[in-house]
Amino acid sequence: MEFFKLKKEKNSLPQQEQESFMKRAIELSEVGMESNEGGPFGAVIVNNGRIVGEGFNQVTSLNDPTAHAEIIAIREACHNLSTFDLADCIIFTSCEPCPMCLAAIYWANIDEIFYANTKEDANNIGFRDYFIYNEFNKPINKRKKKFTQLLNKEAKQVFCNWALKTDKVEY
Amino acid sequence: MEFFKLKKEKNSLPQQEQESFMKRAIELSEVGMESNEGGPFGAVIVNNGRIVGEGFNQVTSLNDPTAHAEIIAIREACHNLSTFDLADCIIFTSCEPCPMCLAAIYWANIDEIFYANTKEDANNIGFRDYFIYNEFNKPINKRKKKFTQLLNKEAKQVFCNWALKTDKVEY
Repeated sequence: MEFFKLKKEKNSLPQQEQESFMKRAIELSEVGMESNEGGPFGAVIVNNGRIVGEGFNQVTSLNDPTAHAEIIAIREACHNLSTFDLADCIIFTSCEPCPMCLAAIYWANIDEIFYANTKEDANNIGFRDYFIYNEFNKPINKRKKKFTQLLNKEAKQVFCNWALKTDKVEY
Repeated sequence: MEFFKLKKEKNSLPQQEQESFMKRAIELSEVGMESNEGGPFGAVIVNNGRIVGEGFNQVTSLNDPTAHAEIIAIREACHNLSTFDLADCIIFTSCEPCPMCLAAIYWANIDEIFYANTKEDANNIGFRDYFIYNEFNKPINKRKKKFTQLLNKEAKQVFCNWALKTDKVEY
């Protein structure tokens, strides 16, 4: 009950402001596409009613498969706010985030997501978001990639050292 | 059958070389942790038997929640090879990739993944990989984040423009 209340209260932007930020995200999706920087995706990050990070897809122009709109917007917002924790921010994205961007939103602690197109819409114009989501639901040995585990004992020693480390910065 | 053959043939590195690349990934996980740049994670990307990209987690030092080892290694490999397509590359990572990094591996077209620690190992030292994977399995309205759809019609117009665009670079 408390948790539900918290989630509701966070969505405090009036509908008109929500639409205005989403229009900016959609505008960015168009700008990036028209300038041939990448796919038709845009995103903005809002903190206390103002935009603190923006991005549009630049995968093909930057030669960076991670240069999705949301990733760029998160990196810019973190840079502008000098933090790796965007817990007080909201993201507006022109399309439901792909698994990479959705996980980045979780790692950045953004709790509220506004989206316009769905991953099915993205699938219909040839993007693989849906396929990747489906892969995640399969056991590791049934996926279309080959996974092999190696040297677990050696790597686990580093994890033990982390657990024992007294001056670590957790995230 | 063909597909299976293709997957098998790609894993052409001798065991000793595999272990040597994984040792480098584990070494990087230790370097980043000891220098307090981020969590205990390292990754290397290999193309034709040589390392073309490396990374260790730098989330807290760079104020970038997307600065995971695999993301940094993918960006470096793409930069070094001047491409957004790492189809001929293999990744060695000191831990089973989180959903962000796994999806990045899919977007980069890397077909083979060697890992040392598992996501359960990461969970045991306090990382949220496992929690985020579980969130992905829930319907959008059951997740611990608030999702709201807005302005689908306006955003879909941009997708239609993409579908009709004649000079687009697909990825």
